[in-house]
Amino acid sequence: MLKTATLLIDCPDRKGIVAAIANLLLQLDANILHADQHQDIELGLFFMRVEFALDTATCDEAAFRARFAPLATEFRMDWRLHFADHKQNVAIFVSGYLHCLADLLHRQQTGEFACNLSMIVSNHTSAQPLAEFYKVPFYHMPVTAATKDEVEDRQIELLRANHVDLVVLARYMQVLSPKFVDAFPQQIINVHHSFLPAFTGARPYHAAFARGVKLIGATSHYVTADLDEGPIIEQDVVRVAQNDQLAGLVEKGRDLERLVLSRAVRWHLGHRILCYANKTVVFT
Amino acid sequence: MLKTATLLIDCPDRKGIVAAIANLLLQLDANILHADQHQDIELGLFFMRVEFALDTATCDEAAFRARFAPLATEFRMDWRLHFADHKQNVAIFVSGYLHCLADLLHRQQTGEFACNLSMIVSNHTSAQPLAEFYKVPFYHMPVTAATKDEVEDRQIELLRANHVDLVVLARYMQVLSPKFVDAFPQQIINVHHSFLPAFTGARPYHAAFARGVKLIGATSHYVTADLDEGPIIEQDVVRVAQNDQLAGLVEKGRDLERLVLSRAVRWHLGHRILCYANKTVVFT
Amino acid sequence: MLKTATLLIDCPDRKGIVAAIANLLLQLDANILHADQHQDIELGLFFMRVEFALDTATCDEAAFRARFAPLATEFRMDWRLHFADHKQNVAIFVSGYLHCLADLLHRQQTGEFACNLSMIVSNHTSAQPLAEFYKVPFYHMPVTAATKDEVEDRQIELLRANHVDLVVLARYMQVLSPKFVDAFPQQIINVHHSFLPAFTGARPYHAAFARGVKLIGATSHYVTADLDEGPIIEQDVVRVAQNDQLAGLVEKGRDLERLVLSRAVRWHLGHRILCYANKTVVFT
Amino acid sequence: MLKTATLLIDCPDRKGIVAAIANLLLQLDANILHADQHQDIELGLFFMRVEFALDTATCDEAAFRARFAPLATEFRMDWRLHFADHKQNVAIFVSGYLHCLADLLHRQQTGEFACNLSMIVSNHTSAQPLAEFYKVPFYHMPVTAATKDEVEDRQIELLRANHVDLVVLARYMQVLSPKFVDAFPQQIINVHHSFLPAFTGARPYHAAFARGVKLIGATSHYVTADLDEGPIIEQDVVRVAQNDQLAGLVEKGRDLERLVLSRAVRWHLGHRILCYANKTVVFT
Repeated sequence: MLKTATLLIDCPDRKGIVAAIANLLLQLDANILHADQHQDIELGLFFMRVEFALDTATCDEAAFRARFAPLATEFRMDWRLHFADHKQNVAIFVSGYLHCLADLLHRQQTGEFACNLSMIVSNHTSAQPLAEFYKVPFYHMPVTAATKDEVEDRQIELLRANHVDLVVLARYMQVLSPKFVDAFPQQIINVHHSFLPAFTGARPYHAAFARGVKLIGATSHYVTADLDEGPIIEQDVVRVAQNDQLAGLVEKGRDLERLVLSRAVRWHLGHRILCYANKTVVFT
Repeated sequence: MLKTATLLIDCPDRKGIVAAIANLLLQLDANILHADQHQDIELGLFFMRVEFALDTATCDEAAFRARFAPLATEFRMDWRLHFADHKQNVAIFVSGYLHCLADLLHRQQTGEFACNLSMIVSNHTSAQPLAEFYKVPFYHMPVTAATKDEVEDRQIELLRANHVDLVVLARYMQVLSPKFVDAFPQQIINVHHSFLPAFTGARPYHAAFARGVKLIGATSHYVTADLDEGPIIEQDVVRVAQNDQLAGLVEKGRDLERLVLSRAVRWHLGHRILCYANKTVVFT
Repeated sequence: MLKTATLLIDCPDRKGIVAAIANLLLQLDANILHADQHQDIELGLFFMRVEFALDTATCDEAAFRARFAPLATEFRMDWRLHFADHKQNVAIFVSGYLHCLADLLHRQQTGEFACNLSMIVSNHTSAQPLAEFYKVPFYHMPVTAATKDEVEDRQIELLRANHVDLVVLARYMQVLSPKFVDAFPQQIINVHHSFLPAFTGARPYHAAFARGVKLIGATSHYVTADLDEGPIIEQDVVRVAQNDQLAGLVEKGRDLERLVLSRAVRWHLGHRILCYANKTVVFT
Repeated sequence: MLKTATLLIDCPDRKGIVAAIANLLLQLDANILHADQHQDIELGLFFMRVEFALDTATCDEAAFRARFAPLATEFRMDWRLHFADHKQNVAIFVSGYLHCLADLLHRQQTGEFACNLSMIVSNHTSAQPLAEFYKVPFYHMPVTAATKDEVEDRQIELLRANHVDLVVLARYMQVLSPKFVDAFPQQIINVHHSFLPAFTGARPYHAAFARGVKLIGATSHYVTADLDEGPIIEQDVVRVAQNDQLAGLVEKGRDLERLVLSRAVRWHLGHRILCYANKTVVFT
């Protein structure tokens, strides 16, 4: 049976990497569907993404891993292998603003994302009708300063029990603790409503309006322990019109947030993102 | 004789401003060629730019000013009147990178700017051939920490002696002192090679590369005493390609710098910019 | 009672128009909230949009119209007056692709459009669940070559019976007859999935892919009797990635379609669009 | 001695291509600096660009070609090999508008292009001062309907005598005959001042203004016998402001022309472009 898989590699750059990988794929009779590579010249690092079709009757996933492991050791690779028939489980966290959620739900319905939407988690109830319409389990989990620690424990447990692979913060207005972030390394994507690193923190549209910038932006990024400092996945901007008041910026910004968050989710689910040195390599 | 003039106004917003201005222009038999207005609703401010044609045989500049003054007092206006036949004098300051200078010189030659290029001032000599080719007086004024104060005095004197209306810092790598800045309020335009307020200070491309942003930007702004904090005139961005190393960012950035600086200069010379609250209103 | 109204004017350009309008508004004690004007210098035309607040206790809509009419006659104006408290009725026509519909429905729910969604009309049934979720009446009206004429008659009747002010074709895959178009002049907005005038007609993404363009676009426009030839309201583009196959263009294009259609609807509902010479003036 | 070379390949897609190339490079002790590949899935084509460093003491260009030839035959490859130390010779053709020329000359001076500027050819004399300033040989070759055939013969001879590798039409307002075009296949780059395929032919800004588009564009492309129909290399657009008259479009368009033409030249000189099916693959 022909299966599609994606291999993601990063390792120190040296001669022979591409030949070694290409030869192994050829020996295993794999058909390369798409390959992309990237180098960080300054740091001497090599990154590769290969998408290939494999006949699992002759070489299944375990066999592939066994064959690949020695090569990975030889070249000191960090590597991940993903078979396309494994659908990833995604949880969306949201608060009161629902535009990103509504957008993600519709994209999922139209087949833009290859994933299961496992759950929507919210500290509000306003997302519940959308969750029901799109038939995604909804968990209302209010958070206060006093309960935050305990609520996060329950959230982590819930995510693990459902084998969630990716947590999407779709304008979730709670700062996650290091404990939560550490439990899902490079598995939490947030959208920040500014062109980072400009306007970190709260109320970025207000800050952008006060500073008088001529373009506003939005940024999707992996969440790390440092707020708004994680590896940037995607950014986009839109021009401010002379007559835009603050409300106009917020309205235009919503469109940007939808775009940069949905692209980040699509790329993550397509195994197109590698992280290093607090940056991302995105193979688009 | 028919002359074109531009009137720039800002004042507290209240009823009757537009009617008062339009009536006066009608009484003076002026023909409105273009009018634009803007309000800052939160601050209750009104801004207007009117371009009109006036028969100076029946109403010359002095007469116009005399007729307009009482109205300005009544509405508590700040106002500026510019006749298009007064060509502004522009000085360009530059250091070692000449791409913005070469661009400005060619634009001036093709008639894009309505100005006289009075001089090019540089702490290097590399700009001299371009200055000679375009027949613009060139002043080599090297600067050291020890001589900076004295050099600035000579520069201010030189600018004043030549009735310079606008100083363009086209990648001039010296920080101007408050003394210099105060001598030319809202008459100094700088280009900063980042999307402000991100990456203020030195080496912004290096900082952008290190942070892993997905777009790089450039910003033109009026110079104030606070470095990189003056009113933003124009910004633009370009997408970083995955394979761009630092040198690629610098190269792409040069195109942005040319664009945002030349737009700022064109708009300033066209009397299209009003400053308030450390922001700009640009009537494009 | 204070009411907000918008006045849209186009007329031959001549001295005194702005003064006449501003004076009348001042006499009626109207407070100008926003004013914008535009000239087509070649054709000698003047366009204006004024948004103002009016105390209808002293001057109601009928009184305003009576006072304005002589001035309009004098300056040979075409003019339209809209009071903001009159909510416009909007019908959305859709076929099998629902991304624009879902987007419009969510925007309406978040208050981005000041309108009533009167109905969704479709030649398919797939939009019905969305219609029900957002509580908008749904009309399934299948069309064949044989029934088209009769179906259009029923649609026109339905739209008129519901006092529909704007028909939005959100990827409605039926060409409207001149009879239909003439029944709603400048009241039908379509989205075409190309950067018009490039790639008119059917399957524009296929044509764009075949031609090898480096950017793809989408266009929203008023519908006229000539297919894809009506006045353009808004356009936007996005860069094609080297690896994009046809499906990638279609996916990226959906985001553009949503953006340009929703902007057109918002501007139309905000009375921000004037048509002349098969073009639009958009006061943003 | 270590030399950098670029290999460009297109061939039918099949298993083993990447392994074969990578193995050969490894055997020749070449160090891959950068590799990029692309597939046209529908047409079953494979494209690759490999940049590598080679020790020419052990394997010189002739040796490399001899080793590569059998592999190319086996995989039915079209291939080109370029050593970076061979500087390409470039001719710029220009008429009355000099903005693209001035831009290219300055970029060349700052080291942005790895080439020799062999000559500037013009049917006008206005470019002569720029040519002299940048020390590029200038040929004034006026063209009339009567002399065109003979002038083209002389131009072809001149280009061949100077071993010109690339002809850049920097707003050259003469249509080249098939004879000329055939003499330099995929070696002539033109800039067209519209977003092709919209507004082909003469006066595209006029046509764009008349149609009322909301964005204007520019396109760089290889010249083929069909005017404006050659493979597109790069395109970009800029937003039209409501108040832009025709002259404003022309002015904004000049910036686009400079950008898309200079990018095309840089990519061509960097051996980053492959043509097939009247399209380009650009490895950026």
